[in-house]
Amino acid sequence: MAGSSFGNIFRITTWGESHGEALGVVVDGCPAGLPLDISDIQAYLDRRKPGQTKISTPRKEADAVEILSGIFEGRTTGTPISMLVRNTSQRSADYSEIANYYRPGHADYTFDAKYGFRDYRGGGRSSGRETIGRVAAGAVAAKLLREFGIELTAYTKSIGPVTIDMNKFDRQSIISTPTCMPDAEASIRAESYLADCMRSYDSAGGVIECVITGVPAGLGDPVFEKLDASLAKAVMSIGAVKAVEIGDGVEASASHGSANNDPFCMKDGKVIKTANHAGGILGGISDGSDIILRAHIKPTPSIFSSQQTVNKKGENIEISIKGRHDPIIVPRAVVVVETMAAATIADALLMNAGAKVENLKKIYDR
Amino acid sequence: MAGSSFGNIFRITTWGESHGEALGVVVDGCPAGLPLDISDIQAYLDRRKPGQTKISTPRKEADAVEILSGIFEGRTTGTPISMLVRNTSQRSADYSEIANYYRPGHADYTFDAKYGFRDYRGGGRSSGRETIGRVAAGAVAAKLLREFGIELTAYTKSIGPVTIDMNKFDRQSIISTPTCMPDAEASIRAESYLADCMRSYDSAGGVIECVITGVPAGLGDPVFEKLDASLAKAVMSIGAVKAVEIGDGVEASASHGSANNDPFCMKDGKVIKTANHAGGILGGISDGSDIILRAHIKPTPSIFSSQQTVNKKGENIEISIKGRHDPIIVPRAVVVVETMAAATIADALLMNAGAKVENLKKIYDR
Amino acid sequence: MAGSSFGNIFRITTWGESHGEALGVVVDGCPAGLPLDISDIQAYLDRRKPGQTKISTPRKEADAVEILSGIFEGRTTGTPISMLVRNTSQRSADYSEIANYYRPGHADYTFDAKYGFRDYRGGGRSSGRETIGRVAAGAVAAKLLREFGIELTAYTKSIGPVTIDMNKFDRQSIISTPTCMPDAEASIRAESYLADCMRSYDSAGGVIECVITGVPAGLGDPVFEKLDASLAKAVMSIGAVKAVEIGDGVEASASHGSANNDPFCMKDGKVIKTANHAGGILGGISDGSDIILRAHIKPTPSIFSSQQTVNKKGENIEISIKGRHDPIIVPRAVVVVETMAAATIADALLMNAGAKVENLKKIYDR
Amino acid sequence: MAGSSFGNIFRITTWGESHGEALGVVVDGCPAGLPLDISDIQAYLDRRKPGQTKISTPRKEADAVEILSGIFEGRTTGTPISMLVRNTSQRSADYSEIANYYRPGHADYTFDAKYGFRDYRGGGRSSGRETIGRVAAGAVAAKLLREFGIELTAYTKSIGPVTIDMNKFDRQSIISTPTCMPDAEASIRAESYLADCMRSYDSAGGVIECVITGVPAGLGDPVFEKLDASLAKAVMSIGAVKAVEIGDGVEASASHGSANNDPFCMKDGKVIKTANHAGGILGGISDGSDIILRAHIKPTPSIFSSQQTVNKKGENIEISIKGRHDPIIVPRAVVVVETMAAATIADALLMNAGAKVENLKKIYDR
Repeated sequence: MAGSSFGNIFRITTWGESHGEALGVVVDGCPAGLPLDISDIQAYLDRRKPGQTKISTPRKEADAVEILSGIFEGRTTGTPISMLVRNTSQRSADYSEIANYYRPGHADYTFDAKYGFRDYRGGGRSSGRETIGRVAAGAVAAKLLREFGIELTAYTKSIGPVTIDMNKFDRQSIISTPTCMPDAEASIRAESYLADCMRSYDSAGGVIECVITGVPAGLGDPVFEKLDASLAKAVMSIGAVKAVEIGDGVEASASHGSANNDPFCMKDGKVIKTANHAGGILGGISDGSDIILRAHIKPTPSIFSSQQTVNKKGENIEISIKGRHDPIIVPRAVVVVETMAAATIADALLMNAGAKVENLKKIYDR
Repeated sequence: MAGSSFGNIFRITTWGESHGEALGVVVDGCPAGLPLDISDIQAYLDRRKPGQTKISTPRKEADAVEILSGIFEGRTTGTPISMLVRNTSQRSADYSEIANYYRPGHADYTFDAKYGFRDYRGGGRSSGRETIGRVAAGAVAAKLLREFGIELTAYTKSIGPVTIDMNKFDRQSIISTPTCMPDAEASIRAESYLADCMRSYDSAGGVIECVITGVPAGLGDPVFEKLDASLAKAVMSIGAVKAVEIGDGVEASASHGSANNDPFCMKDGKVIKTANHAGGILGGISDGSDIILRAHIKPTPSIFSSQQTVNKKGENIEISIKGRHDPIIVPRAVVVVETMAAATIADALLMNAGAKVENLKKIYDR
Repeated sequence: MAGSSFGNIFRITTWGESHGEALGVVVDGCPAGLPLDISDIQAYLDRRKPGQTKISTPRKEADAVEILSGIFEGRTTGTPISMLVRNTSQRSADYSEIANYYRPGHADYTFDAKYGFRDYRGGGRSSGRETIGRVAAGAVAAKLLREFGIELTAYTKSIGPVTIDMNKFDRQSIISTPTCMPDAEASIRAESYLADCMRSYDSAGGVIECVITGVPAGLGDPVFEKLDASLAKAVMSIGAVKAVEIGDGVEASASHGSANNDPFCMKDGKVIKTANHAGGILGGISDGSDIILRAHIKPTPSIFSSQQTVNKKGENIEISIKGRHDPIIVPRAVVVVETMAAATIADALLMNAGAKVENLKKIYDR
Repeated sequence: MAGSSFGNIFRITTWGESHGEALGVVVDGCPAGLPLDISDIQAYLDRRKPGQTKISTPRKEADAVEILSGIFEGRTTGTPISMLVRNTSQRSADYSEIANYYRPGHADYTFDAKYGFRDYRGGGRSSGRETIGRVAAGAVAAKLLREFGIELTAYTKSIGPVTIDMNKFDRQSIISTPTCMPDAEASIRAESYLADCMRSYDSAGGVIECVITGVPAGLGDPVFEKLDASLAKAVMSIGAVKAVEIGDGVEASASHGSANNDPFCMKDGKVIKTANHAGGILGGISDGSDIILRAHIKPTPSIFSSQQTVNKKGENIEISIKGRHDPIIVPRAVVVVETMAAATIADALLMNAGAKVENLKKIYDR
């Protein structure tokens, strides 16, 4: 079905299974001349790696990226950038058990329904490890966007009932807390909540927010390629995401026009808005304000508690999933949301280049 | 930028502005041999037409559809189905005023930023009338899906603070109430709420829910073309939608794995689920349960109240938008959500046909 | 299958059958701000219309184009340009005969094999009238390209054994001769040859050449979107084309490297080539020289002579096709080749805008 | 620009440069359940490897393919198949000379014009080594097609003035002769011709033909995705191809309808044709006959003879290219033509699955 590609001009194609040889991505359409170094990629991959904390799995993967093409003398050449990460861990694990039944909340059953069989080792293509390719590709996008003054910041907004206090926002905490919350106090409460979840053999969900600054007005499209529509697809395509909001999102539906409309005004000779309920997008096109989106993520489906399901023989059985699993997906998904948003904005930036004859005249100056 | 197309195999391309000659759509990739009649399309378009009620504009458009190609002897031929609706009303309206300033909450400013100028008559391409093409195309998709036992039902779930009671669900009311609520009592309360909004020169938002029954397990993709991701894009691409949820959506992020996981069990020799928190999609692929999604829609941005904005000369001005405008977008967007979901599922149905060699052997039986 | 679209950013979608209501095209992705008028389109459509000459059918279609969207105050808005031409002629013709058998050299049989049935009236979707949409769209492309100094000229190079003498090239004759040959003397010989064909109830083929001047170096791609590959697809997608050549084409395969390589040299501070065997494209990317391509077109398959075929009952029969048919397709296909080439180059121009960071910096100057 | 992908459903994305770390391909959309083994791929790659003969370069690359994803327990899983080949040879070569000038007939100049700079080592992305990814992907396509009784055979038809005698066609000779000619006698004459070329420091071109048997009627599309148009693009996208013919190709343009039309007749209850001038495609759709195409390939541009060109300083210079180069591209391109054709047919097979409701009913049998 060719469903492993995303983007129109800045186009990424991920591949690989959890326990195959390797996972990776091909980034096609990145403009030539962008300074790019392996450390630009590795820094992002390190953010999605399992940590050493109580709330993430101890799988010890170096997740060291190799860049195989598309870079020459430190710059992108305009041709495909191929990157891969070898799987080095846990090859010998015994998956015979999960091979024989359908884990609730997982893609086991739907995979079999679609393809007739599946690579059951560690989730195969539906594993969280698939995001390695997305993150590597999004790291390239983020580097490109920085050339144009565009920055993305994603963080954990809430875990279960614990929500950050935006007044205590501290960007450094996104990296330093195990929850990726930019509010160290909230993070401590969230960790405590997660410890409770684990004690009761259960898991939790949460919310990731992403803020994109410096986006010029004009990116996106008025109809199907609306910038918010593309962001929604990008984010909803991340495993476990069950809802996406732009700007005020769900709350906008309970608001009034008088409160929800963002007034325009002039500032330093430029049109700006004095509020941002819209989250930086009007009619599908960026308005020059910060773009703000949120992803709502379900609890980890792998839990120790016993669950009802069926096996391949068509028998009703009761299972309890062994091994170790993160009690929450959210912290490791933060960088995935950020990089998928980056890939989306990069594509929109390129797509917009030819939106008016005036733009093209700047390039094809004869 | 070529942003007016949606879908991969079942591919729709809409065109047209609010006050241009006509609006329409080309549906390419619809399989041959589907019985299709103009009444199949008109029935859906009639559902999106402005009504005669207090809560919708009195623009009197017949919105009579013409089918110009792709049908022969009552069946689709497999070639593009071109449909159009002529604009017949309000040609002479005076738009000189809104030509000169940016309406808050509208795409006026972003259009100018992107394209350098805009068709300011009635919103141009960003008008709600653009959805005529979507609805006509989605009506074809819905007809196709019915051949395979798939049915879609969208309705207003809430307007401002008024939410339907699912115990009082009455499908007939979706058509008969001006709010498109399937709960006549809630509808009366919502109408009263909207009357209040209008009296205070304001507008309201709300929530649309869509339930899709009969979807076979296996539609969608494990990575970027996840069925929920495609639905999210489809729905978020409708003007004024600010959030999309699948299944439990936002609530899933506050739940626990033990509560959120849907157990599998055997019933009549088939695998079913005994709950549907997932909303019919696991790992991006349909699981055979009902697909459930919700769209959160912002309040109508056009309001009578005075608002701050800027004009084209770069002056800060105060405006109050004249004419008549609906106090709410939701009821007329119900059929748009339903038809965009239909287009998405139809495309997934076609994309899935080649997912396994076994499927192809049924077709290419030699 | 969604096969009625062409192009990536400058994307055209044609629709319509020979004897349906109308035929048309949607052009999506044309940059905003291009001055465009209905006469820009009609001029090209007039070139493909059946003439009054002995070598073309007397079907009297006005083929008057309507522009339904995408233009405002004389300029493109950046949104889809929808154009249509009504079918006005020959509705009552009797097609019951060709409905029942497969005409040799036509798509009758393959259509039935693919779709299970077909619109048999006048060839349906496989009619030469399908090119109306291509020509209208390509007229827009040609207008866009002229803004950047790019001009296309297609003409008949040969008909049967009669080939033009390039030393007698007279651009005006392309329009004034019934053969579209830029050599009036050759045209007279070709007309005489065609008269002979008609007398023997037979038909002829020929060659169309297209020269594109002013193309900047750098359009195209080194791999699958090579400019020559895209041109080959564009041209081979025109009915009856059986071969496509770029530059020296077929002759290049019999040449030597020393003769076939085009030397570079400096002229007025710019890199130019002193020969153009390559036809303006090296490694899939335009080199700044004229792009030269040729399309080889088979003889009209509809002939008066008796032919062997089968009918729908599966009987071997002998037919002779009635009505009037052109003895040659070539002259009316000249403008189709030209406009398809224009659409291809326009798309490449837009795709190339983001090829290097340096280009984007000119647009996103902050 | 994202030009490194080909195909709609069976979609291949190649990456890699001649002297980068590796080259490879991602095949997305291959149906699940196809038995596939590394030897299926290696066999095709071995056919494109430089040989030990006088007419091919002695670069000693093992070109051993690794399959990194998409296969489980010996069958395709329906998810992306990632394959790579490491570059092991000639890393230390000195390319400083060709870095500074533009080789005539190569993509050096156009690459610089497009991207601002280039990976000049061995041609970079424009190297013949880029075809490694195509061949590996096409090997998968060929394996898939064999499941449906479709076989492809490409061979050298002519080299310079030496053309094979189809009466002496011997399939085994395609593999055993250094020219890939299926006529051992012609091959000897061609080798002698090439030896002459080399002695005069020159190079030669030739023609590759590909015959595809067992293709069911109905693949392709009546408009832009015509099967011949897609094949033309596939083949013209191979470096050095300057013309593509289908069926009688160039000769069709000099023929008459009475000779060029293929009569239909009934045989064993099936519709067949008694001739195949069309090369198996009518109106863009396969007709059930053999598909026949030819690629015309220019002489190797790298020659020892002295040539005029310019250097990066903008000086006119005279060069003679050192190292060793094949006097002809044709033999090594044979398998590339075959595999690109395979990828095209595989995509058309998948695209056609949903062409009629009747097909879908076979899959979605409820």
